[in-house]
Amino acid sequence: MAMAVRRASASAFRALTSSRNLNSSILTRDLHASPGSKKIVGVFYRANEYAEKNPNFLGCMERALGLREWLDSRGHQYIVTDDKDGPNCELEKHIPDAHVLITTPFHPAYVTEERIKKAKNLELVLTAGIGSDHVDLKAAVTAGLTVAEVTGSNVVSVAEDELMRILILVRNFLPGYQQVVRGEWDVAAIAYRAYDLEGKTVGTVGCGRIGRLLLQRLKPFNCNLLYHDRVKMDPELENQIGAKFEDDLDAMLPKCDIIVINTPLTEKTKGMFDKDRIAKCKKGVYIVNNARGAIMDTQAVVDASSSGHIAGYSGDVWYPQPAPKDHPWRYMPNHAMTPHISGTTIDAQLRYAAGVKDMLERYFKGEEFPPENYIVKKGELAPQYR
Amino acid sequence: MAMAVRRASASAFRALTSSRNLNSSILTRDLHASPGSKKIVGVFYRANEYAEKNPNFLGCMERALGLREWLDSRGHQYIVTDDKDGPNCELEKHIPDAHVLITTPFHPAYVTEERIKKAKNLELVLTAGIGSDHVDLKAAVTAGLTVAEVTGSNVVSVAEDELMRILILVRNFLPGYQQVVRGEWDVAAIAYRAYDLEGKTVGTVGCGRIGRLLLQRLKPFNCNLLYHDRVKMDPELENQIGAKFEDDLDAMLPKCDIIVINTPLTEKTKGMFDKDRIAKCKKGVYIVNNARGAIMDTQAVVDASSSGHIAGYSGDVWYPQPAPKDHPWRYMPNHAMTPHISGTTIDAQLRYAAGVKDMLERYFKGEEFPPENYIVKKGELAPQYR
Repeated sequence: MAMAVRRASASAFRALTSSRNLNSSILTRDLHASPGSKKIVGVFYRANEYAEKNPNFLGCMERALGLREWLDSRGHQYIVTDDKDGPNCELEKHIPDAHVLITTPFHPAYVTEERIKKAKNLELVLTAGIGSDHVDLKAAVTAGLTVAEVTGSNVVSVAEDELMRILILVRNFLPGYQQVVRGEWDVAAIAYRAYDLEGKTVGTVGCGRIGRLLLQRLKPFNCNLLYHDRVKMDPELENQIGAKFEDDLDAMLPKCDIIVINTPLTEKTKGMFDKDRIAKCKKGVYIVNNARGAIMDTQAVVDASSSGHIAGYSGDVWYPQPAPKDHPWRYMPNHAMTPHISGTTIDAQLRYAAGVKDMLERYFKGEEFPPENYIVKKGELAPQYR
Repeated sequence: MAMAVRRASASAFRALTSSRNLNSSILTRDLHASPGSKKIVGVFYRANEYAEKNPNFLGCMERALGLREWLDSRGHQYIVTDDKDGPNCELEKHIPDAHVLITTPFHPAYVTEERIKKAKNLELVLTAGIGSDHVDLKAAVTAGLTVAEVTGSNVVSVAEDELMRILILVRNFLPGYQQVVRGEWDVAAIAYRAYDLEGKTVGTVGCGRIGRLLLQRLKPFNCNLLYHDRVKMDPELENQIGAKFEDDLDAMLPKCDIIVINTPLTEKTKGMFDKDRIAKCKKGVYIVNNARGAIMDTQAVVDASSSGHIAGYSGDVWYPQPAPKDHPWRYMPNHAMTPHISGTTIDAQLRYAAGVKDMLERYFKGEEFPPENYIVKKGELAPQYR
């Protein structure tokens, strides 16, 4: 239904249909490529008329990370599609003989245990971007797959986007915009709940690269900055950023005017912000979540936004994605939600397209990836996903 | 029509109706109060049901800067209204015998030459906030009035708001939000024109307190920062902020991905961004203007936004204000406009209410105001309005 496919040549295609990697075992498939052609399947969002509007719009299905010519010229088969759900989708057709699967968090192809079992040739799952929770990582470990991301490609994009969302909520931007387009003018209806960010307390739940960059960019705003993570920052960096470590999440939450979620989705963080934990937050808290939708209990967020306990909720992550038309976050009060977009700016696309190309190149040559890119390597899960 | 009035007492009222300041001349009315009761008229936006929603919502007509009790207890008459336009408005009724007029930029009472001529008792025009271009300053000079603002009260609020608007435009936030509320999901339609702010060139036209604070808050975003003003910053400050001085505005404009207007409205800056000047900007420029609407040629902004020469325009200032329903900026593509709101957050209201009270107190005692507050003093205009 929704597929764009080009084959390098008929002979390459024949070579590839017989190229099952005989060295692969069930427990640890080879980390790097066997000689010969590979079948690479990429799942990206479809751009339609927008594909032609920007030459750097590499992240869409139509441009397929700009890898088409390069992969074709090396005799690989490169299938790209946006059709990723249900038993009859294009992705399902290509799973059985794909060697490499390229996915993105913005239009996630859910790589389930069933799909991994069907994917007898699969060696490598690459995330064009950051965040590989759409892959069943346990099943990937068991199957001996390599899962890798373009670590760092979204850091600037997501941290900027979080700061934008904090300002949008605290300053109550959206009701003003809505008045304008409706032909209205009522300053009071905006001002009675508009605040400056300066002087407020901002806490980040998780403080990896994105959380740290957010804190660094928040520094000149003269806020009170807190962070909760498993480990304390290097004292020099902590001092330079001016943020205070909070060992106990539940002790940090009631202090925060604004809470930003910067932790990956894992078994431990799934549903972490449920009714009880939201109740521990200050009444009138603003929450920004560009991490993963499933870290929140969906209905608990709706209820707290409706009661006013949450004064505003913004983020670009949902569960599932794309968010269905009836997802209740679309309709709750005081939200500033968007589709999953923060890590797929044009600048970020250029970074993750280059990162995917680099990893494919290393894979073809049998070289290691940059160590920080691995999510699953030789049956071992990266620390942040444990 | 739209008035809230309370009198301190009948006797205070009688005292005040006979308290014409006999010392005032036509050319220089006394800068400070004569003994006895004063008639103080405040023009603020009406809050209706929002007035009760926040105890700190001091800037609305109903709360009247929180000065009611204090002025009443001192025997002054305090009239407040939001009805400011046309020959039969409440403001017109009180102009002839008012001693002090308190206005705001968010719901500007236009203090025209005609009104100043009618205001025989008028001594002091205070702006609750910043920006006194709604006062005919020439006529105020001629009439010997004192015009003063709460300098600094909006600096943090407006600088934060500008940074928010830059991010909203560059990251293409609004189309994503609109998709969400319409039940849609189309990442490509957002991403093809979404960028990171990092690495872009930002230029401020005018670099007073707001412009400088904006540059300081932009610093960790790793942008290329430029500023145009009449004077170069102190070298130490310039070095600390990391911005480059541009002597020639028209030489700076084509370098900028993002232009922020931070200059007051004067005879020289009125219509400064007309068709020709906008044509000098880079194709695809983003413009943020929280200074004053009349600095732009209204139609030139519409035309350039429609052609795509301006990729996005955002601001909270219009001419006139309130913007009529048919103001074309409401309907041009890629705008992120709001009513005039950035300097009237709750935090800013607390600051300018305190500043107005301080100046009234000094006026009653015959003391000088903080020197930076004066816009017109003893027939002389402050430098930024010349």
